Amino acid sequence: MTVPVPGGTLGVVGGGQLGRMLAEAASPLGVDVVVLDPTPDCPAVPPAADQIVGEFDDPDGVAALAARADALTFEIELADPNLLERVGDDADVPVHPAPETLRTIQDKLVQNRALDDAGVPVPAFRQVDDADDLQAAFDDLGSPLMAKARTGGYDGRGNAPVESVADARETFGDISGLVAEELVDFERELSVIVANGADETATFPVAENVHEDEILRESVVPARTTDEVRERATAVATDVLSILDGRGVFGVELFETDGRVLVNEIAPRPHNSGHYTIEGCHISQFEQHVRAVCGLPLGDTALRAPTVMANILGDPDAETRPATLEGVPSALRDRHVSLHWYGKREVRPLRKMGHVTVVADEHGDNSRADGDNRSDGDDRGELLVRARAARDALAFADSPSDQ
Amino acid sequence: MTVPVPGGTLGVVGGGQLGRMLAEAASPLGVDVVVLDPTPDCPAVPPAADQIVGEFDDPDGVAALAARADALTFEIELADPNLLERVGDDADVPVHPAPETLRTIQDKLVQNRALDDAGVPVPAFRQVDDADDLQAAFDDLGSPLMAKARTGGYDGRGNAPVESVADARETFGDISGLVAEELVDFERELSVIVANGADETATFPVAENVHEDEILRESVVPARTTDEVRERATAVATDVLSILDGRGVFGVELFETDGRVLVNEIAPRPHNSGHYTIEGCHISQFEQHVRAVCGLPLGDTALRAPTVMANILGDPDAETRPATLEGVPSALRDRHVSLHWYGKREVRPLRKMGHVTVVADEHGDNSRADGDNRSDGDDRGELLVRARAARDALAFADSPSDQ
Repeated sequence: MTVPVPGGTLGVVGGGQLGRMLAEAASPLGVDVVVLDPTPDCPAVPPAADQIVGEFDDPDGVAALAARADALTFEIELADPNLLERVGDDADVPVHPAPETLRTIQDKLVQNRALDDAGVPVPAFRQVDDADDLQAAFDDLGSPLMAKARTGGYDGRGNAPVESVADARETFGDISGLVAEELVDFERELSVIVANGADETATFPVAENVHEDEILRESVVPARTTDEVRERATAVATDVLSILDGRGVFGVELFETDGRVLVNEIAPRPHNSGHYTIEGCHISQFEQHVRAVCGLPLGDTALRAPTVMANILGDPDAETRPATLEGVPSALRDRHVSLHWYGKREVRPLRKMGHVTVVADEHGDNSRADGDNRSDGDDRGELLVRARAARDALAFADSPSDQ
Repeated sequence: MTVPVPGGTLGVVGGGQLGRMLAEAASPLGVDVVVLDPTPDCPAVPPAADQIVGEFDDPDGVAALAARADALTFEIELADPNLLERVGDDADVPVHPAPETLRTIQDKLVQNRALDDAGVPVPAFRQVDDADDLQAAFDDLGSPLMAKARTGGYDGRGNAPVESVADARETFGDISGLVAEELVDFERELSVIVANGADETATFPVAENVHEDEILRESVVPARTTDEVRERATAVATDVLSILDGRGVFGVELFETDGRVLVNEIAPRPHNSGHYTIEGCHISQFEQHVRAVCGLPLGDTALRAPTVMANILGDPDAETRPATLEGVPSALRDRHVSLHWYGKREVRPLRKMGHVTVVADEHGDNSRADGDNRSDGDDRGELLVRARAARDALAFADSPSDQ
């Protein structure tokens, strides 16, 4: 079952920045996006056709969404797969990716087992339901190890390295319902956005990701590693698709360690580390998701030029306050910088508020505003410097009176 | 005076496809677009923040728009410059481009004189207020000549070649208020999108335009002419900015004839022949317009790869009916094709309903779905064939029951 394009409507559970960028990408195709989100006037609202105000797991809200949509999708992995499945069946509206896929991904133990069974390399892991399990995991996997809550976590939340049972108790409170993984001493964190279309798959270029405090700061594309590792990462990410049902894009986070590539996490939706595709690739991860869910042919994922993305985050130490961003004219003085603002009303510590992207010139001229156009061997290092400079030119006003 | 970005609101007179694509481009910058348009649910509505329903020259409508906006602009040259000037002054909201520029462009005689006075090459022209003037024009400029209504025309409407006074009377009825121009035996029609920023200007690459029945069918970029002609076209278009006040982008249509470049028309807004910039250039003409009007730095206009745009028009002979587009999956089978749909409810003969764009691969692989990736000397000819094939794969259903 496909969505009429143009003229169709996509119902999206969640109306944050991913919903916003989905709506931006859907508009040129003539596809209306309606989002379900509990926050009135959520980030997706300006470009989306409409919002239904309701919790992600509100049966009436999801049913109202389905009633207006030709297909349902979600931009948060906290969506309720059982509810989506039931409402989709009742309303005869397809749900993509499949609720079953969401179920697999929502439980990190199930996810790891499915990957392992499919021959996809993952860190060594153990199910942990009590202190004995955890101690056995320390004995097997060494210490420290990475403890993850099986459910409820995303974007690194619910994950923590622990050194002992006592440490885990302090961090998690209850130590049942955990997965213990070997702590991978990785050289790089990589990611690949993959897409399941109607009868084809597609793989975006490999991104190298810089995290700090479990939050993505920058993505550098192509990843600064060997061709061999990039090929392996692409192959591993493609293999991940074998455990995922239904159409759409997925973010596959990977560790590179000693030339090996291991799967760390899967997001059943467009992913922060794929924002670079908007300017960097022929098709963005957002248009690719819309095309996939609608049953249209996928677009070309090839990188058009080296690209770096940097997240705009709330100051870690500043208090929550209305979001007034300053410095945009300075940030855009580099003529290859693009700004993406998520429209969040309030800035909070480390909240994702927007991002900037810098794309290299296809013709070797990196078009720096300062006239320094040299293109040396490590142009991605230079792009990273420029992306950080643009991001660092931005600041949040202390209070609305500073405007 | 500048617009706060993010967080500002742009008021746009007109909510057609140009308003729609302005809204799509404004969203990532965190700029809300509110449009004034007489048609409820006009094309710009889905991506725009809001619409005020009202005629373009309705004083209350324009005042209501100004009351919500940090700056005013227009996407149709039929906007009323006096009204915009008065409302802008009353509400203390800047209007870009300047109403004076709109006045100049709305009168083709004033426009030609201003260009001529500034040393910008235009076809030889004469003011025509009566039959004697027209006969004198035939004597001076030869026959046939191009007669243009001084005011009220756009996109080639109000222009017609005429061979005699009687012919002109038949075509225009009243022959006062005309401009007579030498009929230029051009080799190519070219165009350049130029931008006036806060303290800088920018010029997009030169497009080669294919017209039929005065309606743009395709744009090929870079124009398939000599480097010298492209440089001249760029220089002429840049000179045009000298007669235009206020910030924003302008479409400059040109004739190439015997190595000369003459200005044919100026549009005080984004232009159909600049749609290729969305995929073809680092910044689109729409984001450039938003940046210019908001007082932000301009982006890089460099072409990322050769690009061809083809308009999707209503069948010339079919009757007006609800617009149901078929064939999108076929059109998108070429992985480098992008679709832009304008959301018009009704298809009418030769109405602009959308466009498709094909971009060459930066790396020489044109990524044809059929696997034929040869890249010969005339890749733009091949891109044009592909753009036409994608467009021709699309068709409008005869009636809603065909859906």
